[in-house]
Amino acid sequence: MKKQVRKMGAMIMAGCVLLNSSMQADEGMWLFTDPPKAYLKEKYGFEPTDAWLEHVQKSSVRFNSGGSGSFVSEDGLVMSNHHVGADALQKLSTPERNLLKEGFHAKTHAEEKQCHDLELNVLMSIEDVTERVTRAVTPEMDADKAFAARRAIMAEIEKESLEKTGFRSDVVTLFQGGKYHLYRFKKYTDVRLVFAPEQQIAFFGGDPDNFEYPRYDLDVAFFRAYENGKPVKVEHYLKWSKAGAAENELVFVSGHPGGTSRSLIVEELEYKRDVQFPSLLQWLNRLEVMLNVYSDRSSENARRAKDYLFGVQNSRKAREGGYAGLLDPKLIAQKRTEQQQLMAAAEARPDLKPAVEAFGKIASAQKIIAENSAKFNLLEGGRGFNSEYFDIARTIVRAAAERSKPNGERLREYRDSARESLEFELFSERPIFDDLEQLKLENSLAWLAQQLGYQHEFVKKVLQGKSPRERAAELTSNTRMEDVAVRKELYKAEPAQLAESKDPMIQLALLIDDESRAVRKIIEAQDELKRQAYGEIAKAKFAIKGTGTYPDATFTLRLAFGEVKGYMENGKKLPHQTTYDGLYKRSADHEGRPPFDLPPRWVEKKSALDLSTLFNFVCTADIIGGNSGSPVINKNAEVVGLIFDGNIYSLVLDFVYTDEMARAISVHSHGIVEALRKVYQANELADELGGGKSKRTGS
Amino acid sequence: MKKQVRKMGAMIMAGCVLLNSSMQADEGMWLFTDPPKAYLKEKYGFEPTDAWLEHVQKSSVRFNSGGSGSFVSEDGLVMSNHHVGADALQKLSTPERNLLKEGFHAKTHAEEKQCHDLELNVLMSIEDVTERVTRAVTPEMDADKAFAARRAIMAEIEKESLEKTGFRSDVVTLFQGGKYHLYRFKKYTDVRLVFAPEQQIAFFGGDPDNFEYPRYDLDVAFFRAYENGKPVKVEHYLKWSKAGAAENELVFVSGHPGGTSRSLIVEELEYKRDVQFPSLLQWLNRLEVMLNVYSDRSSENARRAKDYLFGVQNSRKAREGGYAGLLDPKLIAQKRTEQQQLMAAAEARPDLKPAVEAFGKIASAQKIIAENSAKFNLLEGGRGFNSEYFDIARTIVRAAAERSKPNGERLREYRDSARESLEFELFSERPIFDDLEQLKLENSLAWLAQQLGYQHEFVKKVLQGKSPRERAAELTSNTRMEDVAVRKELYKAEPAQLAESKDPMIQLALLIDDESRAVRKIIEAQDELKRQAYGEIAKAKFAIKGTGTYPDATFTLRLAFGEVKGYMENGKKLPHQTTYDGLYKRSADHEGRPPFDLPPRWVEKKSALDLSTLFNFVCTADIIGGNSGSPVINKNAEVVGLIFDGNIYSLVLDFVYTDEMARAISVHSHGIVEALRKVYQANELADELGGGKSKRTGS
Repeated sequence: MKKQVRKMGAMIMAGCVLLNSSMQADEGMWLFTDPPKAYLKEKYGFEPTDAWLEHVQKSSVRFNSGGSGSFVSEDGLVMSNHHVGADALQKLSTPERNLLKEGFHAKTHAEEKQCHDLELNVLMSIEDVTERVTRAVTPEMDADKAFAARRAIMAEIEKESLEKTGFRSDVVTLFQGGKYHLYRFKKYTDVRLVFAPEQQIAFFGGDPDNFEYPRYDLDVAFFRAYENGKPVKVEHYLKWSKAGAAENELVFVSGHPGGTSRSLIVEELEYKRDVQFPSLLQWLNRLEVMLNVYSDRSSENARRAKDYLFGVQNSRKAREGGYAGLLDPKLIAQKRTEQQQLMAAAEARPDLKPAVEAFGKIASAQKIIAENSAKFNLLEGGRGFNSEYFDIARTIVRAAAERSKPNGERLREYRDSARESLEFELFSERPIFDDLEQLKLENSLAWLAQQLGYQHEFVKKVLQGKSPRERAAELTSNTRMEDVAVRKELYKAEPAQLAESKDPMIQLALLIDDESRAVRKIIEAQDELKRQAYGEIAKAKFAIKGTGTYPDATFTLRLAFGEVKGYMENGKKLPHQTTYDGLYKRSADHEGRPPFDLPPRWVEKKSALDLSTLFNFVCTADIIGGNSGSPVINKNAEVVGLIFDGNIYSLVLDFVYTDEMARAISVHSHGIVEALRKVYQANELADELGGGKSKRTGS
Repeated sequence: MKKQVRKMGAMIMAGCVLLNSSMQADEGMWLFTDPPKAYLKEKYGFEPTDAWLEHVQKSSVRFNSGGSGSFVSEDGLVMSNHHVGADALQKLSTPERNLLKEGFHAKTHAEEKQCHDLELNVLMSIEDVTERVTRAVTPEMDADKAFAARRAIMAEIEKESLEKTGFRSDVVTLFQGGKYHLYRFKKYTDVRLVFAPEQQIAFFGGDPDNFEYPRYDLDVAFFRAYENGKPVKVEHYLKWSKAGAAENELVFVSGHPGGTSRSLIVEELEYKRDVQFPSLLQWLNRLEVMLNVYSDRSSENARRAKDYLFGVQNSRKAREGGYAGLLDPKLIAQKRTEQQQLMAAAEARPDLKPAVEAFGKIASAQKIIAENSAKFNLLEGGRGFNSEYFDIARTIVRAAAERSKPNGERLREYRDSARESLEFELFSERPIFDDLEQLKLENSLAWLAQQLGYQHEFVKKVLQGKSPRERAAELTSNTRMEDVAVRKELYKAEPAQLAESKDPMIQLALLIDDESRAVRKIIEAQDELKRQAYGEIAKAKFAIKGTGTYPDATFTLRLAFGEVKGYMENGKKLPHQTTYDGLYKRSADHEGRPPFDLPPRWVEKKSALDLSTLFNFVCTADIIGGNSGSPVINKNAEVVGLIFDGNIYSLVLDFVYTDEMARAISVHSHGIVEALRKVYQANELADELGGGKSKRTGS
């Protein structure tokens, strides 16, 4: 239903990127089942044991709002980024109390605030189900049948697993279809906010400093997982390092990189360059301007739109970077060479013939996707109906239709094993603002008209002879989707009852559903063909290069590693770390003007702080959007930092790894503790970190 | 070479606009040669005499930066808007002295600052040359020949006039081709800045309040026209009204509305809706985001980009309004009905048969324009090569090529009669910023690749195997177009010498010139066909409805009129005027947060001000972008105000007049004088207004 925009994308700086044709250095977003033990041992003299891996895996947490985190106390304390928690902070705020702006600190368990729709997942086990999934799809099936068969077997495996273990169970696709793993998650839906600083110190430097380094951000927030009304006791959590990270030290990052495109064939990269990125950037620019205009009208408007605007700007900046990379002819030329080498090697082996044919199959499928992607993005991707009320109405309409089908034949998000999470979000009491919803919907209906053409039959059907403004106004003011009780009532209704509903959003969702499903079906079938073809290419890669590799990121748990290390920029050495002293200097350099202003508390407490405290640092670990909030740990699995950004050179990691200038940026563990104690008087929280029990009263 | 974005566009609010099928109320942007005397006499009991008209006409001033103004003292003092003068203020600023932000006040003539490239024009005479222009184009000519013939006759008339009178002479097209007038202008190129307030009070309320009412803006600036190093003595200038404007008083606006689309046929409006506006808005959104990001990095960046960013935001807001109007099906339905009525009436008269055929001809031409408009905007319209250095290089390259051709065969901007103005701008010492130029060029080269396709031969030719970033960097850092001496040297060169130039911008301009001229030729030919067809339609309209009408706006001098009058909004009566008191209240309501902050001087001087002084007011006069800076005068041709904006409902005036809620917004004459005396201690300037001689020393 919603998907937080990712923190990072891809950027290439002219002439400064090494394009590696084979893995080297500290590359890789590794599966926990297949980490590069030999490489680590050889280069760093350290080999993670199975127990080490299990401990780190089970200490890692995935946020459904689109980021990563980790348990950092036995009492279920979870550390992540402020910007990962911002969605929850926004939803807990009121016009009177703006938590995003003012920050929050619960001194007792009783003060910890329950989040509206935040779900945390912890990966408990991994099972390779490639053979079972692959067997279900046979060569004589056409694309539609193959897709249906694959969807059915995945739903079956998930349901079986859910019933057997009680865990949330997801079959994930790896290597673009080369492997399928069953992931079982422990799920937490009672998550409470413990601490967040002011957004101004979490995101100090704002959009200008985003993806830049040196940095000075306290991008941290703490939550706590509850069960049965009490903080959970967790077996696995990360201890806190006393020493912090030293220069050149080996560190690990355990988190959920959202997506990379390193193994895509050239024709798919060209699609991204020529179709996907341009269209996405136009959409993002449009949203950014709209949200800026809305926010400028009043501080209450700014509060309402803040988190959404942050996400749009962040995404725009990352995507501009990625697009610049794709526009660099060297990148695609290099990929083309690698592709030709692989094809030549496969040609030489009769058993790999399907891989040679696979390239053409993917290119053909991509063509059909390109022809349908605009419509897909409008109808299924939310760009034509950018409204929370519409999303809710569509979920109700589709849930009713899907319920009566066998589990394996439903749209994937309505499978039995996903039902609890879907209902958790559908029935959340998060605040929704009519004025902002109306504006978003008007803007997206106008975009729909632009993209399909004002005279397009579908557009006419949607607008019903009205302007986008009129239509958005009547839909938003007459729907009752803001009322959770109404949602619950309608969610129980049968399709025939919904057809009788007077709610205009329900009627709109019904009106467009056939056409929306039709375009989705086209895309899904082509994706299936690509999955089969990429499966063949993966087989060839494994056969030719060996299996010691890692799949593209898919918002599943991965282990990355690297060294704490500065870099050269324009002939100048940038240090591996920054201090609080630098924060105050940077603010002074900009005369404290936004976004370089400091929260009042930070101005007051300056003299109390040890200004030499380490604040942020960089390392060469291979990360991407979704890794935000990942713990940075040392060989002893102790926390030394908290990933919150990558530098501008890291944006190219979407397509290729480089460690020349690309760096992951973290908050230093020392900076976190110093701020908790000296600025926020949160000694009890600082004491709890890394194993000290919660000393809070009130629970 | 450059064209300031227009201040207003068009917007329709759902269901609140009267679509008038015939002229009524205070409609019209009238030619000074054909004002609605009878209507004025009947409704207001006032008939402007020829002397009155001549006086107002010759007191009116056109700014080449895209706005209006008027002489307000016999010593050549010119009043306009701050935002019309902002381009000049920006160019006169330095990192140490930001005139846009801090304001400016010359206490002596010696302190008045000469503007870099500001040219003022005063319309001295009007001659109807329709017959001569029309006779030169004969029915057997094809579109290319007809266009060439029309261009030639216009250039010939202009050159003759220039040689005979010494005045800048332009043949202007009216009624989309229904009439041609020869306008002779007195030209001032030594224009000096006299006074400007801080931008924060000129544009108080910023983007949120732009196009809104009630308003509180001191959007005024004063310049002085010089000749031979001395202030000019002008015969015609406007006196200052002691009384100011009263509610329901008849007022006139004399200025230069930039462009309206009221007489366009439905197919051309649909082109605007489906092609022109969507594409323009995407481009503007893209620029706005780019300029915001650049400006946020430092206050010096913000200073460099300020005027450009203001223009982009202003244009975006106006165009969003216009687009919303076009998306309202009622507007086009009404236009279609009118069109059908006119066609039916013409059908009935054999002599008007060409008018009936004209509609189809325009629609066919518009189709060809639609197919070529993206390329035209990229290559000729600046969107693919958004760089001042490129503009300069292209002017040099084209001037060399055009010089050797007969006057009538040249691209129109290189005709003899336009040469002085072109060179004035080409050789101006205005500051140009490499970093901003590089960013603009990178952004527009990426846009070029998006729009035409990365694999397009033209794009490949332009990028030369490099990314937009690399290419923009090498072009911007290696060109020498920043040096006016180099420009002057190259401007003298023959085409063969330019071909040998090592300057990369000159080479780029040469590289794309053939293709750029080719697409321009296509558009010009179709425009010619449209001009002929609209000429026939105009004839039919005159025959059926009479000649007592006005042509669409074309940035030529017009007279509008209306009443000072408030309006109802959401059941609430909005007053016809505001006071200084309201200014301070509005700032306090927003706790003084930008853009509702007041300049320090205005905070200090509050107690010195009479807070009941009238500040802004609204009237029903028919205005549009380009009218910014127009004087508002009473029946005695005395200044009562200064147009600076229209409200949001006025944005629909692009397509249709309405006086229900649409209003022009002015600074009140009382507010101007009170601020000059009490806030700025500019008594000598206040004394000079309206006829008092300049009392300045130092000249």
